[in-house]
Amino acid sequence: MNAPIPDHALPTFEQRRVPPAMLAALQQRFGERCSTAAAVREQHGRDESPFPVTPPEAVVFCDSTEDVAAVLRLAAEHAVPVIPYGAGSSLEGHLLAVQGGISVDLSAMTRIVGVNPEDLTITVQAGVTREQLNQEIKDTGLFFPIDPGANASLGGMAATRASGTNAVRYGTMRENVLGLTVVTAAGEVIRTGTRAKKSSAGYDLTRLFVGSEGTLGVITEVTLKLYPLPEAVSAAICHFPTIAGAVDATIRVIQMGVPIARCELLDVNAVRAVNAQSRLGLREHPMLLMEFHGSEASVQEQAEMVQAITAEMGGEAFEWASRPEERTRLWAARHKAYFAGMQANPGCRSVTTDTCVPISRLAEIIDASIADAEATGLPYYIVGHVGDGNFHLAYLVKEGDAAQRALAEGASLRMVQRAIALEGTCTGEHGIGLHKMDFLVDEAGTGGVAMMRAIKHALDPQNILNPGKIFAW
Amino acid sequence: MNAPIPDHALPTFEQRRVPPAMLAALQQRFGERCSTAAAVREQHGRDESPFPVTPPEAVVFCDSTEDVAAVLRLAAEHAVPVIPYGAGSSLEGHLLAVQGGISVDLSAMTRIVGVNPEDLTITVQAGVTREQLNQEIKDTGLFFPIDPGANASLGGMAATRASGTNAVRYGTMRENVLGLTVVTAAGEVIRTGTRAKKSSAGYDLTRLFVGSEGTLGVITEVTLKLYPLPEAVSAAICHFPTIAGAVDATIRVIQMGVPIARCELLDVNAVRAVNAQSRLGLREHPMLLMEFHGSEASVQEQAEMVQAITAEMGGEAFEWASRPEERTRLWAARHKAYFAGMQANPGCRSVTTDTCVPISRLAEIIDASIADAEATGLPYYIVGHVGDGNFHLAYLVKEGDAAQRALAEGASLRMVQRAIALEGTCTGEHGIGLHKMDFLVDEAGTGGVAMMRAIKHALDPQNILNPGKIFAW
Repeated sequence: MNAPIPDHALPTFEQRRVPPAMLAALQQRFGERCSTAAAVREQHGRDESPFPVTPPEAVVFCDSTEDVAAVLRLAAEHAVPVIPYGAGSSLEGHLLAVQGGISVDLSAMTRIVGVNPEDLTITVQAGVTREQLNQEIKDTGLFFPIDPGANASLGGMAATRASGTNAVRYGTMRENVLGLTVVTAAGEVIRTGTRAKKSSAGYDLTRLFVGSEGTLGVITEVTLKLYPLPEAVSAAICHFPTIAGAVDATIRVIQMGVPIARCELLDVNAVRAVNAQSRLGLREHPMLLMEFHGSEASVQEQAEMVQAITAEMGGEAFEWASRPEERTRLWAARHKAYFAGMQANPGCRSVTTDTCVPISRLAEIIDASIADAEATGLPYYIVGHVGDGNFHLAYLVKEGDAAQRALAEGASLRMVQRAIALEGTCTGEHGIGLHKMDFLVDEAGTGGVAMMRAIKHALDPQNILNPGKIFAW
Repeated sequence: MNAPIPDHALPTFEQRRVPPAMLAALQQRFGERCSTAAAVREQHGRDESPFPVTPPEAVVFCDSTEDVAAVLRLAAEHAVPVIPYGAGSSLEGHLLAVQGGISVDLSAMTRIVGVNPEDLTITVQAGVTREQLNQEIKDTGLFFPIDPGANASLGGMAATRASGTNAVRYGTMRENVLGLTVVTAAGEVIRTGTRAKKSSAGYDLTRLFVGSEGTLGVITEVTLKLYPLPEAVSAAICHFPTIAGAVDATIRVIQMGVPIARCELLDVNAVRAVNAQSRLGLREHPMLLMEFHGSEASVQEQAEMVQAITAEMGGEAFEWASRPEERTRLWAARHKAYFAGMQANPGCRSVTTDTCVPISRLAEIIDASIADAEATGLPYYIVGHVGDGNFHLAYLVKEGDAAQRALAEGASLRMVQRAIALEGTCTGEHGIGLHKMDFLVDEAGTGGVAMMRAIKHALDPQNILNPGKIFAW
């Protein structure tokens, strides 16, 4: 267990070359939008994971579903891999061209296809980011709550089944995608779902594509649920003498059914890092950062319940942040914890875990994981969407230091084993990518993975869609 | 368009016979739990749809996942169809043995596998009904909200992606199933999902099986989300001079983001039928039957908002039903509307529609569908989960009267076409079964259905799992 990065996760040299005829056809159709420049390829052969850069052979910048379909038809003809690229914010090696091929960059697909405020729905192209989305609808009185921190693209968020800080109240991409436009492995365009809120019409293809990490089709448009902006929003922080107190308070809040909108844990290391980066002057204790949405009365009621619970668990007095600027500053700091952690440890990359467990087991897994982390001697910090039972313990390892990397990966493996033993999952929101392929087998069993593989073989018989990810072919 | 029941939906005579060796093996293992008695077979060859009874060759009463796996291994060996049977409350012909085979009756699988009140989760065998489930957990302070009216089995509800009156607040089976135990076409047992609230681990097999109508595997256990019983519940009815007023009020309530727990429409025909059956003495006007869940303050707040909206839309004064007995009586009447409608029209069976549209299009489709229904001259009534944009217009047609049946089916087809044109779905919660196979093609397109078929072929290469349903092989 000292080499927890599985062999099949490493870049392979048996690349499936893009034949000259295909490259010529791409260049003819896309002109300068098809690039083989080294810098462009390098940029598309990495993500936020610590894996080495593994560039594709070419990058095609698509503007439309029809562009994507054209690439896929050529790729199918020549059996060449295609890797969809949104904002590049994946954490698990999703974007690496481990079998070569073409990176299909969707970041210019930023068109709002249709807004229906009267139905609380919107359809956007896959390259629209969550910040752009909320900017575009800001005059409708509606918002899209899913917020993974990074300014990810909606296509990418759908493909990794992302969630983030608001999921405890509003659900994840699983619950908030109504329908998709998808280009298949054969270059055909299908539309899944409708704009109706629910449906029992056949297999749930929408949910099959959500979380499929580009391995079953390329998502080019996403229809999403929107929500009325809450009448009242307030945020609060509460410090605890121990991390156990913060976790126990969270468990109780969820068990009581308080409809809290955000409930984030920061351990003392994370607080120090964001203090250093954002000069927030937070007390350097474990803390919960919470947000309440609703009517004035309901926000008041929720906050009172939570205050009583945190007091019982040893929490210190709430500090309120009711002014929007103050809230924005706090949440910006939380979202920057990832970069703050790296900044505090120059020359390091982050090995981030992402387990999620039933809420009652959260204290147990956090305790054991901290003990394990301390024993490694590596710098680490914890942030987490603890209201969902999901947290990230990030190790900071020196770039290129194999021994440190192995230490971190070993601890990560043990954490996953703990999560699975507690009836949880190896990944709450980051996906499998390259990094967790073996963990998926532990979690879903060989039967479950065989079923996923059968579906993959049926829908992508040449294995051209983001090959080498999620499970071995 | 006068023969809207598709040919492929009719019972086929090319039955795949159960070979004597298989029957002997079943009888040896199951003894009296394997029945070929005509009465038992007839009972398992029908559901609540108006299709003619189409019995299986034998019925096997299973007690465990291992029982089901044993049947499936034999069925795989002999390429014999298997049709899972829960409570028999399907509405679209799901249970009919159109290619013969074995009905696997799960109604004795009523064991609670594990309750975890501290995590708001429960795992039950597939034969547990929603009433039994809520009975079993009544001392935990929790409840399971999905309520399709019928006392359906949880396995069946998962298989048809059921929802019902509470879905507007709590979602459907899609949102409330955390994991499943499934027996595959080869007789292997797999477990999908975990007890964690969210996960990004590989393809969403749970959601693939939810709504697959027994065609991809047999669901034998279901892990579900539970909810804290609301501190306060109140119900109200509000009459409207016109159905349009009731619909417009609903649209406004949803658009305002009121977290109403139930919002049901009854047209004047439905009110008359439930009055006649349950002696409720309701005023015979179109009405909304609503329920509010939350804290005392929040229920009050919701009710005030809704009262203001209904008044604006011409609704008459609210009548409150705060006492539990009164509420139970009202909801029981609503749930019995289906049988009340048939009782009011002796010798009739119901042809029930199930379209669901984006909320802003609800008035438009209900208006057009009423005009169409009036033109048929057939008795009909409307009930609906209008808060979701979902409603049922049920035609009552004389059993065996082909002309009446064709009239009803013609109107049903036109309603589906309207729903699809309005970006809605042909079925909000009843499923495709035999009845809506052509509608599914209209809705999902040939590309979408081809993808479903590819998945079916991959997971059930011999077509033994509930063959002849959802789409043609």
